[in-house]
Order: sequence, then C-alpha cells, then structure tokens
Amino acid sequence: MAAKLDTRAPPLRPTRAIRAILTMLAHSPFTTLSLLLPLLAYSASLVLGNGETPVCLSPGFRILLDEHTAGLPLPHDLKAAVKRTEMALKDHGHAYLSPTAGREFFSKRKDNSTEDLAACEHVLTALHLALDPNVLGGAKAIPSILSSAVAPAESRPELEAYRLSVPLDGPATISAKTALGLFRGLTTFEQLWYSVPISHPSEHGSSGTSYTVLSRPDSLAASQQLPLGSSGSQGPAKTSTLPPQMLDAMAMVKLNVFHWHITDSNSPHQKYSEDEVRMIVQYAGERGIDVVLEIDTPGHTAIVAESHPDLVACYERTPFNTYAHQPPAGQLRFADPRVADFVSGVFTASAGLSGSRYFSTGGDELNVACMMEDEPTTELLDRNGWTLDEALDDFTRKTHATLIGLGKTPLVWQEMVLDHGPMWSLSRDTIVDIWKDSRDARAVLDRGYKIVHAPADYFYLDCGQGGWIAKEGGGNSWCDPFKSWARMYSFNPYENVDEAQKELVIGGQASLWAEQTDETNFETVMWPRAAAVAELFWTGSSGGRFPRSSVEALPRMHDIRYRMVESGVRAVPLQPYWCALRPGACVEGK
Amino acid sequence: MAAKLDTRAPPLRPTRAIRAILTMLAHSPFTTLSLLLPLLAYSASLVLGNGETPVCLSPGFRILLDEHTAGLPLPHDLKAAVKRTEMALKDHGHAYLSPTAGREFFSKRKDNSTEDLAACEHVLTALHLALDPNVLGGAKAIPSILSSAVAPAESRPELEAYRLSVPLDGPATISAKTALGLFRGLTTFEQLWYSVPISHPSEHGSSGTSYTVLSRPDSLAASQQLPLGSSGSQGPAKTSTLPPQMLDAMAMVKLNVFHWHITDSNSPHQKYSEDEVRMIVQYAGERGIDVVLEIDTPGHTAIVAESHPDLVACYERTPFNTYAHQPPAGQLRFADPRVADFVSGVFTASAGLSGSRYFSTGGDELNVACMMEDEPTTELLDRNGWTLDEALDDFTRKTHATLIGLGKTPLVWQEMVLDHGPMWSLSRDTIVDIWKDSRDARAVLDRGYKIVHAPADYFYLDCGQGGWIAKEGGGNSWCDPFKSWARMYSFNPYENVDEAQKELVIGGQASLWAEQTDETNFETVMWPRAAAVAELFWTGSSGGRFPRSSVEALPRMHDIRYRMVESGVRAVPLQPYWCALRPGACVEGK
Repeated sequence: MAAKLDTRAPPLRPTRAIRAILTMLAHSPFTTLSLLLPLLAYSASLVLGNGETPVCLSPGFRILLDEHTAGLPLPHDLKAAVKRTEMALKDHGHAYLSPTAGREFFSKRKDNSTEDLAACEHVLTALHLALDPNVLGGAKAIPSILSSAVAPAESRPELEAYRLSVPLDGPATISAKTALGLFRGLTTFEQLWYSVPISHPSEHGSSGTSYTVLSRPDSLAASQQLPLGSSGSQGPAKTSTLPPQMLDAMAMVKLNVFHWHITDSNSPHQKYSEDEVRMIVQYAGERGIDVVLEIDTPGHTAIVAESHPDLVACYERTPFNTYAHQPPAGQLRFADPRVADFVSGVFTASAGLSGSRYFSTGGDELNVACMMEDEPTTELLDRNGWTLDEALDDFTRKTHATLIGLGKTPLVWQEMVLDHGPMWSLSRDTIVDIWKDSRDARAVLDRGYKIVHAPADYFYLDCGQGGWIAKEGGGNSWCDPFKSWARMYSFNPYENVDEAQKELVIGGQASLWAEQTDETNFETVMWPRAAAVAELFWTGSSGGRFPRSSVEALPRMHDIRYRMVESGVRAVPLQPYWCALRPGACVEGK
Repeated sequence: MAAKLDTRAPPLRPTRAIRAILTMLAHSPFTTLSLLLPLLAYSASLVLGNGETPVCLSPGFRILLDEHTAGLPLPHDLKAAVKRTEMALKDHGHAYLSPTAGREFFSKRKDNSTEDLAACEHVLTALHLALDPNVLGGAKAIPSILSSAVAPAESRPELEAYRLSVPLDGPATISAKTALGLFRGLTTFEQLWYSVPISHPSEHGSSGTSYTVLSRPDSLAASQQLPLGSSGSQGPAKTSTLPPQMLDAMAMVKLNVFHWHITDSNSPHQKYSEDEVRMIVQYAGERGIDVVLEIDTPGHTAIVAESHPDLVACYERTPFNTYAHQPPAGQLRFADPRVADFVSGVFTASAGLSGSRYFSTGGDELNVACMMEDEPTTELLDRNGWTLDEALDDFTRKTHATLIGLGKTPLVWQEMVLDHGPMWSLSRDTIVDIWKDSRDARAVLDRGYKIVHAPADYFYLDCGQGGWIAKEGGGNSWCDPFKSWARMYSFNPYENVDEAQKELVIGGQASLWAEQTDETNFETVMWPRAAAVAELFWTGSSGGRFPRSSVEALPRMHDIRYRMVESGVRAVPLQPYWCALRPGACVEGK
C-alpha cells in the first residue's frame, strides 16, 4: 500500500509476507468431499495398485474442452488452467518412487525382472471436461474459478466437487458443477501420472519414455510447471517475498484459503502496493484460493505512530518485552473514539482489495501494561466508566460494524473470545482462529463460535528454529519443538469436541510467521509439511478415522514432495532417497 | 565413482552430498590469526565506526597485481580470485544495515538528517597485492592457492596470514607470504564495502550511487558473485547436490576444510563420478578449502553387499534398529582378512582423488549385535582368539597402514578411541572428531589425541527437524533441539581442557548430515549458522575470551547473512528486517 488508499490512508504497511498463513478456513473439511479418492470413479480395471494394467499417456494427448456449455463461453481462468495442465503433462518428469522407477508395472515376469517390458497396451488420448449445464439455470455466463474461490465457506464443498473417471478404453472425463470443480479435478488428474523409462524395441533400437497412470492411492497432488503469467494474470514483483509459486504449490494440494496477515509493527520497510495485492488476489483466485486479508488491531500496530503519533500508546517504550510481545512496543489507543474511526477507515480502504467474504481484524496479543500505563487511555476509561475490556468491546463493535457493512464476515484470533470477558461485539458469525494451544478450541466452541484449528502445538510451521529475540547463547523458539509433518498429521480435529459442535469446526490452518522466514526459506519451511495439513483436513470426512496414520501417509508425502521438487518448489526431503523408494523400509521397528 | 577405480573397484558409491560436513579441521583456530581484525592494519584515520570519514570506491577501481614476483609468474588461481573480487565489487549491492542505509555516514548534520549529503572526500582507486618475495627462496614457481589449501594443518596459520591496509590517501594494500594469504585478504577487502545510495548534486539533478568503506568491526565476510568456471575450473554437474556455491559461501567466511562423508549405506542411487569429485576438489582448493574425504568403515557399509555379499554381515536384516543405526542394516565383516584387503583397496583407489594430507576412515556407530549374530564373524573371532574389539583393532591397523603408506593422516570419529578398548592401531597423529557430546572431548584429549570439536549438542546443523525414521505422530530428532547460531557461538573450545591439552584442540566443525537435507534445503540449513562457527574458531586466539557474546556478534551475523543473500546464497533471516537495521533493538530486556 505504498499508494494512498484514500484520504484517510493508513500508515499501516503491508509486510513482505510477514505472517503469511495458509489456511483451509473457507472450506468445511468434514464433508463427503475428499482431497483424494472418494470422488474418483476409476474403471475397476484401472485400480492398478498391483501394477497389472498401466495406462500410457499418448504423446498426442489432449484435453477436450467444450468451448460452449449451454451456449455460454467458458471462463478464461479455466481455459488457462487447462493449458497449464496440458503443458505440465507434456513436460512431465515425476518418477515413480521405487527402486525400478515404475518399470515393474510393465514387467510380464513374476520375478520382477524389468528387462522384458511389454509395450503399453492402453493409451489415453484425451480427457473430456464436462460442466453440468443443469446448474447454470438462467445464468448469462459460466462463473469463473475465481468467483467460486471467494464464495462463502458453506458453499465450497459443492463448488469444489468433481468426478474423475479414467476408464481403460478412454477417454477420461472430469465432470463438475463449476469451473472450480473442474480445476480441482485437473489437479488430481495431473497427480496420477508418473514418468517411467520404458525400453521400446523399435527399428532404431531400444529406447523411449512413456507415462503410466497408476491409481496408486498414495498419490496426493500433482505438479504445475507453467511459467508465471500463463494464466493471464501477473504475479507480484520479483522482489516480493510472496511469489506466485507459493500459490501454485498451495493449489497443488488444494489448499483453498490464503490468510494474509498483511501488516505488523515491524513492517515499515517492507510494503506491497495496492496493485501488487490485487495481483496476488487475482492470481490466487484463478487457482481456487480465497485471499483473506488481516489488518491486525488493536495490537501489533506500533508503526501507526510514524504517521499518527496521537493514536498510539507506548510507542517504542523499553524494555519492549514489558509493553509488547515483540519489538517495537506500541498499540492503538482503542479507548479513543478517533482510533475506531481510523481503523474503520483502514478496513474500508483495505476490504475491497480482495473479493473474499472474510476479513480478519486480528485481536491477538494485546498488552495490558502498555494500555494501563498510558495516561490518555486511563483518562478515557475513567471518563467512560469503562474497564479496558469494555473499551475493547466498544472498539470492536464499531470496527466490526464497519466490516459487516462492507459485506465481510470478521475473523479474530482466539484471545478476542477467551481473554477479555464477554465480548458482546462479536457477532455469532465471527470465525475464531485457535492458535495458542489445541486445548483452547473447546472453550471457544462452548461459546458457540465457529473455529479454525491453527494451534501452535500442531500447525505452526516456524516453531523450532531457535528463539529470535537475541540473548546470550540463543534459546529455543517459544513453541519448540519443530512441528514435523507427522505431528501435524496426527492432529484430531474432533478431540474433545461434542457431536453437536462438529459443525462449528470449519477448517484447519498451517501458519507461517515471518520473524525468521523470508524469500530465502519460506518454501523449505512450508513444504511439504503444509501438504500434510491439506490432506488431513480434506479427508476429514472419511468416517471420523482420527487420528490418522502418518506411517500410512508417508508414501503419499514422499510422492507429493518429489512432485513439488519436479515443479520447482523447494520442498524438503523427509527421509533419505533410499527410504523414499522403499515404502515401509524406514519405519521404526520394521 | 561410477567409473571403475581399479580392478578391486569398490561398490561403495559416493552420496550426493550425503553427510556433507564443513570443518575447520586443518586449521589451528587458536593462533594469533583471526578471521577479523587482528591482522587488518587500517590507517587509524579509517577506523570509521562513527561514520566520520567514509571512503568511496572509484568506478575505475582496480586491483593491481604485479604479474611477476621475484621474476616468477603468479599462480592462475590467484589471478582468477582477483578477477572475482573485481567483478564482485563492480556489481556490489550489499546495503548498509541501518534505517538510513548508510547515508548517515555522509551527513554533515548532527541531527541525523540525510538530505545534506557531502560529496565523497576520499576515493579509493586501487588495491595493490604484494607477495613477500623473501619467502620464495629458490622456488621456481609461486605456489598456488590450491597448494596451500592441501598443506598440513600446522602450517596453515602462516599460509593464510595477510596484512590489509586501507589508508585514507590510498592505495590499499594486501601483503602476504602466499597466494592463499592474498586470497583471504581479498575476501576481507570485499567485506568492507557497502552500497550506499547518495544523492550527488550534479548537472543532471540529484542522483547516483556510491560505495563507502566502513571499517565497521562487525562485518564478517563478503560476497563472491562470479559465475561458475570463472576461475578456470568446472563446477560439478547441475544435478549434483554439492553445488559450487557451497564452496563459494564457505570461502566467504574462510571455512577452510570440507570434510566429505562420501559413502553411506543408503547411497546406491546417488553417485558422483571420479571426475566430479576431482572437479569439486579443484574448485575447493582454488578457494583455499582442503577436501578431506571420508570412506566410513566398518559400519555404514551395507551397500557393499550389492557387489560383495560375502564381505557384509546382517545385510538388510530387520528390524533394522536392532542391527544398525539406520536402514538398511549391514556392516563389513571386519574380522575377515579379505575385508581389510578390500577396504585397503578402496582407500588406495580413493585417496588420490584429493591432495589433502588427511583422510577419514570413519569408525562411527558400529553395531555389535550385527557382528555377534554373524556366524562367519564369530567363527573368525573364535579361530583367532579375538574379542570383537581386538578384531577391530587389527582391521584398523591394516587399513590405516595402507593410508599412512599413501601419505595420509587418518581421521576417525570418537568411538574409535572411546568405545572399543585400547586401540593400539591408532597412530599418535590420528585426529579424532568429537561428535556425540561436547563432554566427550576431555576423554579423548586425556588419551593424547588431537581433536576437532564437532559435538552434536552444539554443531550439528540438522538437529531439530523432527525424527526421520517414520513412526506414528513423528517424534523429535535425536539431537533436538535445533542448534541456533547463538548456541553454536556460545561454545567454549577450552571448557574442561587443561592448559597442556590446548594444543591438541586443532579446530571446530559444523556438520550437516543428509537424511533430511538435499539440494532443496542445504543452503537454508547451513547458512548463516556455519558463519558463526567460522567466526568462533577463527577468533579463538583472541585472549581466551570464551564464551563469546552472541549478542555482540548479532550485527555481524546480520551483515554476513545479507551479504550472502546478495551473492545468491539462501542464508536464512535471523530476525525481522526491522531488527537487522537496529542493532540492540531486539535483544531480550532491551
């Protein structure tokens, strides 16, 4: 927001990915929709886990898109997604993870020799995309992927649903009710393929590479290898720490909300322009990702003092630990009605940057000492006969009213419900992010709010890198230890949740804060761990089988990790390559 | 070693950076030589920590190299290093870390306003390199950097020494006794510069960028931005996980040994060719880095069974944890004299790949259960009347004799001294790597061996990423928690070391193993933490001031981190950028 937002332009400056957060927020993970197989309707003869019947992708493979459905042209972003899938399959290089790299699927021999490879008997030449015309009703245009990406959470399961069929005698088909559904199906279709080196006896000797489709239930997602901008949108500037490949990687595992904490106390040097934010929102939407902006208030706002010193208490007061959770100290004087006006202005100016129905107002880590030692604040409390919590309630009522008037549903961090007495200002629609501890979920549910699971003890990606506040000899991160993908995957979203409360659990979130993360390491910190979170919540409906087995999920995690690497994402290795090729060989006690 | 080494070619296959290890091994860290200032002889007027007297680098700046010293041509690798430094300074973009990006050094005003910038009064046009001709004696050629890189440890301090002078009235000079010394001086020279945006009033308006030299004592190293091959050598293949930029980054902080664990049980899929190894050794040597190869025996050798099944016990036996420290199980039957012959053959074939005086034979994590349940082994023990330890001693005697005959000094991991009774086979020259626990150093010193500090509780770069052996819910790494740079920096190399034993402490080492590390994340795991280890050991001589202060070192760590990023190394951020610009602002209690 280097450009002015409006006449009340805020001095808040978006961070360069400070606190980039991935979230499943807007999608109910507990429906019958799964990230993986339940919606995949393979021909029975194609259930190839035993490698009996491989299907090869024809070099002339095409995705057939009826350019007009019910007489209406298809949306631009779907057409772009189809082109990306075609390109990805054309350049496909993801190897099957086995010692013989998938050649075993072509072996006729029982002794697993790979020398006698059969020619590919089944070749897939086309994939048809079918959009259900019945759902269009009297619509004058087929809604874009982006339009579904910003739809309300409760409608997402239906919008994202698809049916994928790959019969042995082709062609394959994906059918869905929306462009978003087709896009999700395309992503799954990509993930079915492996590049297998096969020797073809031919006139020119024995050579050639082919692709095989394996309905291996342990493939999780697939690669997108297209260069930026191929979708018709522009990625953010190269110097940005939020490069489009983060959104591409999110789409690979069908993470569908990017919760973007876009301002913080220490972000004066790192800014996005409004245009850059809009480009990110557009790029995300075309990939089915809703961008939920967060302007954190009233804490984490020290930097407002640079332009509006009157509105900020305890700015840069030291020792900072006494007055803030991180340097520099400084919080909005929320008891002052001018602050509510200012924040409402910021919300008004920012809300339009994303078409999302949701907007986060933050509310975390309010420092009481800062406020209670602030004379202007204590005078206002006295004058109004308020406690600090009552002042916060009044501030929240005003600023949330502004948001709701703009058509947004507020999100808040858990403290807004748990730490400040009854907050009458919070509407029943408010969504609450559980972040401090997984055990805090129940108390929020008991107050009747919808929650998103983002507890630090499971889902904070940046734990375990050492403490970042300097002290002699260092120290560990506050949420040590490191949360491994297996730890994340072992989370039970329904732990201590009553049956009647389950519908209030609307998603999960893997959070990445940026004290020790920037463009150099965001990918290695994020991937493939966030993929485990995606699978956990997308398969949450599968009969309540929690906790899920991370040992069973390991081959899928290896697969998606190597797919990500193949597509240029710096996803880290989970085990030595030797182990990745041998499922079960590197399991404790095996 | 895809190519045959000799007729007894080993099936051991070098890993793709499996267990790449950085080490200061061959350099005594406790001499009067320092990584930083003691040898830098600045003009007193250039001690500019207060920003009073900046010196700008002339656009026409040149490094003047007397092409002939004592009538002899200069070595090729020094000339290449000079070109790299010239290019790095020409493209220099490292900003001074302050809110005003160094403009404060040009301000005449006391109020820190940066608008009234003075023109640069002091401009440096040239740096002279001076090689001391006296030391050449009757030599017929000036030794290359590489030749010094493979010199014995005890001679390194003198070979690496240099004197750098940057008087206000120029030119600057670096003098040294060797090409390696000049190279180290060049590296330090590069680290003195910052790119400062200065507005020059000129005919064309106010614009322009200039460089300023600041003798800020908290700069640690500098950037090398040259493309591969500019030195005349080739880097390894692009698919390798040991890219040359790792060696470039090591040279930036003057890490001078690359201890390369080049084989392991699970590395059959990842190989270097002999030519690739030679290229890495060459590339390293031209940057003052000695490459010490490790062929780990008799443990960590399961994969030998693929070609020599007779020589390996308990191959792939399960559960692997019973028979090995990691899958797959399998160890050389070292009681069998054929094994000693085989290993001697491997050593003979491998030793020549590096000109280093040192070669590691490993010796870690020998699994006793594997050997004692192995019939061929127990039969041999019975026949010879040996204990297992006595058999190991005999094996070590034979294989070390081969190495010593090849002119190599053996390195071993600590177990060879501490875990197997008296090992008469270990010569007094043997260097012992302390890795399990820092408290183990004393016991090895008490036995009279030289040691390198590489304890996991301080210097293992890969701790804290979660356990990599699969089990439900994951688990933490065996050496949890993560070792932060500040933890590493707080190490005291002389803790519990007697005065008389100090000379046995010959260096420190930051180790990176590769179970969860490959080309995607080796840089983020390694940097800038290994820079803290470099400074710790290079400044070890400064009066025994241990433990050193990580709070004081923090600005230097930020500086080298941003220099690394500027030169393309993915060094991770240690604190938010806001903190990096404000030394002391993000310190506990401040």
